[in-house]
Amino acid sequence: MNKTKQKLYEIIFEADTPAGKLFDIALLIVILISVALVMLESVEAISTNHRQLLHILEWLITGIFTIEYLLRIAIVKKPFRYIFSFYGIIDFLSVLPTYIGLIVVGSHSLVVIRILRLLRIFRIFKLTRYTQAGRLLAKALWASRAKISVFIFFVIILVIIIGTVMYLVEGPEHGFSSIPRGIYWAIVTLTTVGYGDISPETPFGQFIASIVMIMGYAIIAVPTGIITAEILNPTKDENTQVCPNCLFPTHDKYAVFCKKCGSVLNPGKE
Amino acid sequence: MNKTKQKLYEIIFEADTPAGKLFDIALLIVILISVALVMLESVEAISTNHRQLLHILEWLITGIFTIEYLLRIAIVKKPFRYIFSFYGIIDFLSVLPTYIGLIVVGSHSLVVIRILRLLRIFRIFKLTRYTQAGRLLAKALWASRAKISVFIFFVIILVIIIGTVMYLVEGPEHGFSSIPRGIYWAIVTLTTVGYGDISPETPFGQFIASIVMIMGYAIIAVPTGIITAEILNPTKDENTQVCPNCLFPTHDKYAVFCKKCGSVLNPGKE
Amino acid sequence: MNKTKQKLYEIIFEADTPAGKLFDIALLIVILISVALVMLESVEAISTNHRQLLHILEWLITGIFTIEYLLRIAIVKKPFRYIFSFYGIIDFLSVLPTYIGLIVVGSHSLVVIRILRLLRIFRIFKLTRYTQAGRLLAKALWASRAKISVFIFFVIILVIIIGTVMYLVEGPEHGFSSIPRGIYWAIVTLTTVGYGDISPETPFGQFIASIVMIMGYAIIAVPTGIITAEILNPTKDENTQVCPNCLFPTHDKYAVFCKKCGSVLNPGKE
Amino acid sequence: MNKTKQKLYEIIFEADTPAGKLFDIALLIVILISVALVMLESVEAISTNHRQLLHILEWLITGIFTIEYLLRIAIVKKPFRYIFSFYGIIDFLSVLPTYIGLIVVGSHSLVVIRILRLLRIFRIFKLTRYTQAGRLLAKALWASRAKISVFIFFVIILVIIIGTVMYLVEGPEHGFSSIPRGIYWAIVTLTTVGYGDISPETPFGQFIASIVMIMGYAIIAVPTGIITAEILNPTKDENTQVCPNCLFPTHDKYAVFCKKCGSVLNPGKE
Repeated sequence: MNKTKQKLYEIIFEADTPAGKLFDIALLIVILISVALVMLESVEAISTNHRQLLHILEWLITGIFTIEYLLRIAIVKKPFRYIFSFYGIIDFLSVLPTYIGLIVVGSHSLVVIRILRLLRIFRIFKLTRYTQAGRLLAKALWASRAKISVFIFFVIILVIIIGTVMYLVEGPEHGFSSIPRGIYWAIVTLTTVGYGDISPETPFGQFIASIVMIMGYAIIAVPTGIITAEILNPTKDENTQVCPNCLFPTHDKYAVFCKKCGSVLNPGKE
Repeated sequence: MNKTKQKLYEIIFEADTPAGKLFDIALLIVILISVALVMLESVEAISTNHRQLLHILEWLITGIFTIEYLLRIAIVKKPFRYIFSFYGIIDFLSVLPTYIGLIVVGSHSLVVIRILRLLRIFRIFKLTRYTQAGRLLAKALWASRAKISVFIFFVIILVIIIGTVMYLVEGPEHGFSSIPRGIYWAIVTLTTVGYGDISPETPFGQFIASIVMIMGYAIIAVPTGIITAEILNPTKDENTQVCPNCLFPTHDKYAVFCKKCGSVLNPGKE
Repeated sequence: MNKTKQKLYEIIFEADTPAGKLFDIALLIVILISVALVMLESVEAISTNHRQLLHILEWLITGIFTIEYLLRIAIVKKPFRYIFSFYGIIDFLSVLPTYIGLIVVGSHSLVVIRILRLLRIFRIFKLTRYTQAGRLLAKALWASRAKISVFIFFVIILVIIIGTVMYLVEGPEHGFSSIPRGIYWAIVTLTTVGYGDISPETPFGQFIASIVMIMGYAIIAVPTGIITAEILNPTKDENTQVCPNCLFPTHDKYAVFCKKCGSVLNPGKE
Repeated sequence: MNKTKQKLYEIIFEADTPAGKLFDIALLIVILISVALVMLESVEAISTNHRQLLHILEWLITGIFTIEYLLRIAIVKKPFRYIFSFYGIIDFLSVLPTYIGLIVVGSHSLVVIRILRLLRIFRIFKLTRYTQAGRLLAKALWASRAKISVFIFFVIILVIIIGTVMYLVEGPEHGFSSIPRGIYWAIVTLTTVGYGDISPETPFGQFIASIVMIMGYAIIAVPTGIITAEILNPTKDENTQVCPNCLFPTHDKYAVFCKKCGSVLNPGKE
């Protein structure tokens, strides 16, 4: 029994064995079908014509996910730790909405929860070679969080002031019916999205909008600059070896001599 | 008395003591409520149904800000210097509009002044760890001001010429009713905002617009390049130690020998 | 005979002789005319008024391309290798649609295949000085493929979730008639294209859209950062000389001593 | 007489003396008024109500520019060289349209030529401190011209293919009435301008559009990367001193010893 459990653990939780890889690919396909199903269900022409088929497929997938979920609980060493882990909760939420749909009729908004099945994909990709690139990007974004926060904070202040000014200049008769709507317009403009659902119509409003757009030109460069600098930085080959002689704090990655005083650095630290 | 004054100064103007931090957080909440109030007041559905409530809250907040403003004047050593400082003026403008509203009826446009209360937030954030990131960004923007100015100057010239050409090509019947409007369109296009409130309709106009857009593609890269280079630059490890022998002006940050003549640099300068 | 063949080979396949260059320029002009023809044919006003002329020109160009294609087969040493090469297939597809048009009436969609003649341009530009710049760009894009893939994968997941949320918040009555349509809106917004064919109308929808746009601000910076870093990297002056003493793998381009142990590097390797 | 000429030359062509600076500022103001005049004339409400005033001002400015133009010819040493120089032609074109307007009635399109007066501004700014920043930017753009050309060439090919595909998929009934119009749409989308005057309406068209937009996401990063890399590069402190011993081609700007063989570099070259 214990041996079967060990083997199942390798198949379901790991991806080193051929069986484990096969399981991952099968699971990936089921997840993708499941997400496609949720999407198709939302298209009215399809959901009315193929209601029966969609229903059956949905229950089939829910069945597969339920068995998988119960298997995971049965196999894992610390079931409770799994159940309350990030993926444990996602796995649970993957099957919950369909069962709730049995009891509560017309639980329309549960569709969002079902789309969360998508997040299960991350578990499968956890072990591939793309992870390194992902980690590098995540690291760069994380390292620049303070600068990005300051930037977004500044943009929010700016957008509130611009939105208020435009509300006064253009007024409700040109679509700027309230300050929040003015702020929405300011965000749409500053980020260069520019729907055109609200756009300035008075010459003075268009003049202010022009200034905002040219400002947006310079402003959009800031996050790009921040993240580019951050992506370039991790390649800086530096370590934090402290020189035992002059206490100089950082050196080139493979340095054996202090760059300031020339003393031999502590090689054990590397 | 003097001791109370000293304590109040620490609470209101500084943020090192627990009481000072509490005061800052309380003030932050009042400012945010105040700004939210100004926004909600501009939404017609809300302002007609809850006129009474909004009125009371507005006076409550004005009262708090007035007391705070008078306290600041009373406590600070050089009251006049505070009154005419940037934050002193902002603090004054935060309470002024409500009082003016008592006398002048329908002072609609004073709403902009009330939104300036938002700027008081910067005082609170002045002392946090995000300031360093903010200063770095501000420094990068400031250092690149000459390049950004040249760039914007060039964009303005370009936009005037494009706007005039499009006014002639498309003409008033397709929305390009005047040169300023043509310039407005050119800005909307070159910055890739693209509202679509005015868009070229003749084949030749669309051809010119296509060229403008592809140009905009290359042009948008310029401010990004400038600011990225500037953000990367401050990490250049250089100092301004002048070599005592050959007077060479800049050296690597921790250099002990001149990079040109090899003389020992003045270590006291570092 | 063999000498004529050799000469023709030089003219048609190479660009070193004056005749070869002339052939390339003539071919370039024919290709451009051919593509312009396909475009003009699609404009209804032109295709109805000049049907006869367009027809004649199309057959003229097809004739030229057919002769060229047959010549290439006759001249090249390994005809089959040419026929099934990338350019061989493009050359074949350049003439096919016109002949099929003789048999099958109204083969409207073959126009796409005819536009593929455009790809023949790349053969002509293969030997110019712009190729180096192109190769550098291609190299930078290729080197960053893992990061770009991870980024696009992340964007797709994000866009599916945002699209689903907006479908629920805005609903079919505001244009978000299905989840795929919501996803289409999310892509239009996140990439800052912003057509405005679908745009949020409820205050809550506009609030979510605002967050998406500001997120898009930070997200658009990521590919820029990746590619900038990649373009800057090839200039890193490093070689792969292995130190004969300590086996340290990379050194500065012109280093003569190992940066780790100080041994003399193998100069023959450079 | 010669002395007056010399003095006038200094005032008109140079900017070192107080009088020269004053002349430049006066000229700048006249140019700006002149351009503003051209703009205002195009606004119908203004041009009908103030026809008389605009007429007088236009002749006043033309008079000033004519005198200035004749003075420049009289003063300069080689009049013909000035007349056929870039600024000489601009100066001539600045006054021409108004005189032509006397003879030819309704010469509407000459307005473009009058807007070229704007270019005269560059002469005034030629001698200011902003020039250095401008030159740096121009140099970066010029250095990256090969890469930018390749990039734009690639974008044009891509846009033609996408435009043709969309013309077939969406067809004239959804606004894609011809291939050139499809190409126009592809440019509007790929550059993230997104007017929304034409937008895909079939699900399949929206799917293709989504792919184009995500591609545009990665593509817009390329020119940014190119220009950023170019702006960062000129700061590389390198010269082209060839080592007299080992013929190594480039060294750090102030190097006195060869970085490869350690020989003394030729100091006279610096």
